Amino acid sequence: MKKTKKLRDLINSEKLEFIMEAHNGLSAKIVEEAGFKGIWASGLSISAALGVRDNNEASWTQIMDVLEFMSDATSVPILLDGDTGYGNFNNARRLVRKMEQRNIAGVCIEDKQFPKMNSFINGQLQPMADIEEFSGKIKAMKDAQSDDDFSVIARVEAFITGRGLDEALLRAEAYRKAGADAVLIHSKRSDITEIEAFMKEWAGRLPVVIVPTKYYTTPTDKFRELGISLVIWANHNLRSSIEAMEQTSRRIYQDESLIHIEKDVATLEEVFRLQGAEELKAAEKQYLPPSKSDSGESK
Amino acid sequence: MKKTKKLRDLINSEKLEFIMEAHNGLSAKIVEEAGFKGIWASGLSISAALGVRDNNEASWTQIMDVLEFMSDATSVPILLDGDTGYGNFNNARRLVRKMEQRNIAGVCIEDKQFPKMNSFINGQLQPMADIEEFSGKIKAMKDAQSDDDFSVIARVEAFITGRGLDEALLRAEAYRKAGADAVLIHSKRSDITEIEAFMKEWAGRLPVVIVPTKYYTTPTDKFRELGISLVIWANHNLRSSIEAMEQTSRRIYQDESLIHIEKDVATLEEVFRLQGAEELKAAEKQYLPPSKSDSGESK
Amino acid sequence: MKKTKKLRDLINSEKLEFIMEAHNGLSAKIVEEAGFKGIWASGLSISAALGVRDNNEASWTQIMDVLEFMSDATSVPILLDGDTGYGNFNNARRLVRKMEQRNIAGVCIEDKQFPKMNSFINGQLQPMADIEEFSGKIKAMKDAQSDDDFSVIARVEAFITGRGLDEALLRAEAYRKAGADAVLIHSKRSDITEIEAFMKEWAGRLPVVIVPTKYYTTPTDKFRELGISLVIWANHNLRSSIEAMEQTSRRIYQDESLIHIEKDVATLEEVFRLQGAEELKAAEKQYLPPSKSDSGESK
Amino acid sequence: MKKTKKLRDLINSEKLEFIMEAHNGLSAKIVEEAGFKGIWASGLSISAALGVRDNNEASWTQIMDVLEFMSDATSVPILLDGDTGYGNFNNARRLVRKMEQRNIAGVCIEDKQFPKMNSFINGQLQPMADIEEFSGKIKAMKDAQSDDDFSVIARVEAFITGRGLDEALLRAEAYRKAGADAVLIHSKRSDITEIEAFMKEWAGRLPVVIVPTKYYTTPTDKFRELGISLVIWANHNLRSSIEAMEQTSRRIYQDESLIHIEKDVATLEEVFRLQGAEELKAAEKQYLPPSKSDSGESK
Repeated sequence: MKKTKKLRDLINSEKLEFIMEAHNGLSAKIVEEAGFKGIWASGLSISAALGVRDNNEASWTQIMDVLEFMSDATSVPILLDGDTGYGNFNNARRLVRKMEQRNIAGVCIEDKQFPKMNSFINGQLQPMADIEEFSGKIKAMKDAQSDDDFSVIARVEAFITGRGLDEALLRAEAYRKAGADAVLIHSKRSDITEIEAFMKEWAGRLPVVIVPTKYYTTPTDKFRELGISLVIWANHNLRSSIEAMEQTSRRIYQDESLIHIEKDVATLEEVFRLQGAEELKAAEKQYLPPSKSDSGESK
Repeated sequence: MKKTKKLRDLINSEKLEFIMEAHNGLSAKIVEEAGFKGIWASGLSISAALGVRDNNEASWTQIMDVLEFMSDATSVPILLDGDTGYGNFNNARRLVRKMEQRNIAGVCIEDKQFPKMNSFINGQLQPMADIEEFSGKIKAMKDAQSDDDFSVIARVEAFITGRGLDEALLRAEAYRKAGADAVLIHSKRSDITEIEAFMKEWAGRLPVVIVPTKYYTTPTDKFRELGISLVIWANHNLRSSIEAMEQTSRRIYQDESLIHIEKDVATLEEVFRLQGAEELKAAEKQYLPPSKSDSGESK
Repeated sequence: MKKTKKLRDLINSEKLEFIMEAHNGLSAKIVEEAGFKGIWASGLSISAALGVRDNNEASWTQIMDVLEFMSDATSVPILLDGDTGYGNFNNARRLVRKMEQRNIAGVCIEDKQFPKMNSFINGQLQPMADIEEFSGKIKAMKDAQSDDDFSVIARVEAFITGRGLDEALLRAEAYRKAGADAVLIHSKRSDITEIEAFMKEWAGRLPVVIVPTKYYTTPTDKFRELGISLVIWANHNLRSSIEAMEQTSRRIYQDESLIHIEKDVATLEEVFRLQGAEELKAAEKQYLPPSKSDSGESK
Repeated sequence: MKKTKKLRDLINSEKLEFIMEAHNGLSAKIVEEAGFKGIWASGLSISAALGVRDNNEASWTQIMDVLEFMSDATSVPILLDGDTGYGNFNNARRLVRKMEQRNIAGVCIEDKQFPKMNSFINGQLQPMADIEEFSGKIKAMKDAQSDDDFSVIARVEAFITGRGLDEALLRAEAYRKAGADAVLIHSKRSDITEIEAFMKEWAGRLPVVIVPTKYYTTPTDKFRELGISLVIWANHNLRSSIEAMEQTSRRIYQDESLIHIEKDVATLEEVFRLQGAEELKAAEKQYLPPSKSDSGESK
């Protein structure tokens, strides 16, 4: 099944579904191996992994390069956290074509302005996109896709920027009419109240996606009860890798030795396995002359 | 002090020095913050993080892109694990110029053939480079550098490919004469015997670098005693991040919740700190009109 | 019709067909507009346009970036001059997948060694690829393609490197057996004699492609008579642009004025037309709010 | 002398100076060989050569990749046509650092909004940047440069967008105070009247740069008389190459032969010369073993 169809099915599934953050080819593969049916290519995580800020410091083609490695390394669909679409409608529709070439299944764009700021930093202060312009952007993206199953998800930042339920509903409805395949309602409250209020009024007009980074204590059954379609675990591979690397680096620095670290880190064999070393070994047998695949000496 | 000078000083230091692996901007910053005076840009780690094999599947310019992010994110010098120099002398000298533009302090090249194979996979079977050709490559690289302090380290794979001490010494001496700033003697034995044998005969003709991934149980004081100059902890940030992400992904998948993960991962604030969010906040105050940095609504 | 099918049809056509060199998106579009049914993405031209030598100084992913722009700008198929496949069988099969993502219809690889040298510089001196290894590379590439119509053309450099007819036939036959879709027989003689000798012995076992850069005085009907399938005009857009730019730059430098140049160069309107400015203008009407597409002032 | 210093000297020179458009490494080299002391990396030309529109369809890092090839191929300074700085002050200051790494001598940014439109398409309709915000951007860029001689030129689009002399002067003065090293006054009239009016009021407060694409019939001595510092011949290499390639492609298509083209295009030897083939030949003698640089056969 095409990756685009797989993602669309996740969005439209009757069941609550889950996708998990990754930020490079390696973490994407780990997400797939853990059992997840989809991957969230997080803007925050990708920028942090690269070593820059989540403010469009990496160019959109640098993000495409990361995505290409992620997509090549996995078979489950990838949903890109596409910021604001990296410009106006024309940049956003170009993005769709570039994602399709790289076998990315869908993109989520948020109704803020370029260059974006992370939703958890000074969210209150951030201007939002003009509703009509953002709707035109969604329409342009849907018109640009060549695969009917490619998904465009509209992320509503009304709660994040302190504008309240009416604005959230107004925007979600406009984006639905413009052709969005789902809406992502974002909230930075530590409880589910904003989302809950939205779900009641929204009444299932389109599938709803959430990112419970801040309200992570809410039981998952509550999401089911509210009729949420898709949950994004948005940045936890990145954050676990930071914790692990900080501890590892400090310990090795202090010890001047690997002796206390070796047993706690993945083996070299596990690294090679994740890279697919076995497939290459077999391929060398198949495609290289015997003299090249087992000889010792070259001139 | 220039990064090139810092690395050269590490190599020439009387003391045993240590550098630590990183594979992207984030891990590079973590290495620096842990206290290390230098960063090892590991070919294995970078390829694994990208999601490809350590066989020159990523192009050399894709590696340069990774390095540029790493260098921009840090102030300590970076030594690149430059495989075979990605081709012949002409590719290798071009690489030097590209590294200098990106403020990379030095490169280590190994006497194998393009495309490379990882030293810990079937090492015995791998052909080595022609000594004369490899020496010409070193010479071309040294002639190409515009900064006198840029370092070229010659990695001798004689032990890895089962060729023994005489070959190791013959090659190390040829590379020294060609202009290498140090030699890296690699071994995949789980003890130090090969390195020890080499050090006795070598007698300090050039600084020696080692990578004790396989003989990690050897006490570090033994390296001091042998007169080693620089130790590379070669892949442990990658391996600790794999272990952490595998556990995190599995746990979240099973729990369908973040509740048991949240306390074990770095906070969002730590992510923002590593990205340098504070500097941007201050810069916005300095460079944006008040209406743009604190207003709520844009048209 | 898919681009891959279009190229395959050109190769297998009963008629003599022609494709023309391009080296960036602009020249590719010009080739298509002139009426050509296919585009030759020349390694010499692309490297020269970038400003580097035809010796794999640009990385293979930098070539992919150029190809992506070329493919996006055109609807006729592109055949890549893929040098030696940029490494061994594993690099070459990876290349196939990357070309398929970018909608490139086929690739021609030559039986020399990485890094390559241009066939018209010191050709006599260049070593050739091992036949068995090169055949394995072709096989790996054919196995890697996901689209049955993707074409792999084997370029035989036996004449270029002074090895004669028997070697050319031996190699062509080996590559045919390995799965090549056509052979390209290259010659640097100023007459057609080498090609003619080959065609007689070859007897149509596979379609034959030629590059008459050096024997350009041979009448085209002679190619038809010999049963050639496809002729590549390999570098003449590049060479005409060089002549034009050298004259233009010199004239403007001398005149310190555009006055004598203006009438001889394409108009700005022609530049905008080639870029597709009209489509964007129409799209702005469709996707931008009226206030954004015709207003004068923003805040 | 550093390239940055060379460009600054051109800007501050008592004499009228000239720089000429290039759009890739090849055209950049041709500009230098024609005698020009500097190169204009035109946004229009670079986008057109890539095959996309002049509306930020290519990402800013794709532009950096083009610039890197241009800079490596030449020794005269390059001034980048940097559109609006590709985002806000933070994107613009990041751009400065990336240009410095690639040895680009300066950048010109224009007071419009991202994504940009070409000044000669519907110019009247385009919104301008907020003066205060644009001034902050200039300030941020000047603060970001590590080389004192790097130049930031502020391009005033007041005439282009139909706003008149007062607005042009107001903006130019604001940008001067913000730290710009020169102002570029753009006009799309076919006569010099707007520029003339500006120059009289401006009274030499900062060097002035012009782009006489539309008023090309104005005698160059008039520019001298008005006290202009630098003239940019902005897109004529691109336009001459389009004319040449269109004619060449059509002719070869019609003739099915190179016979009438060969004498009008640059020779292959000229291509190799521009690429620097001689240097590589000499380097092979110096760095390759004799067996590799002149042998026929490899194993």
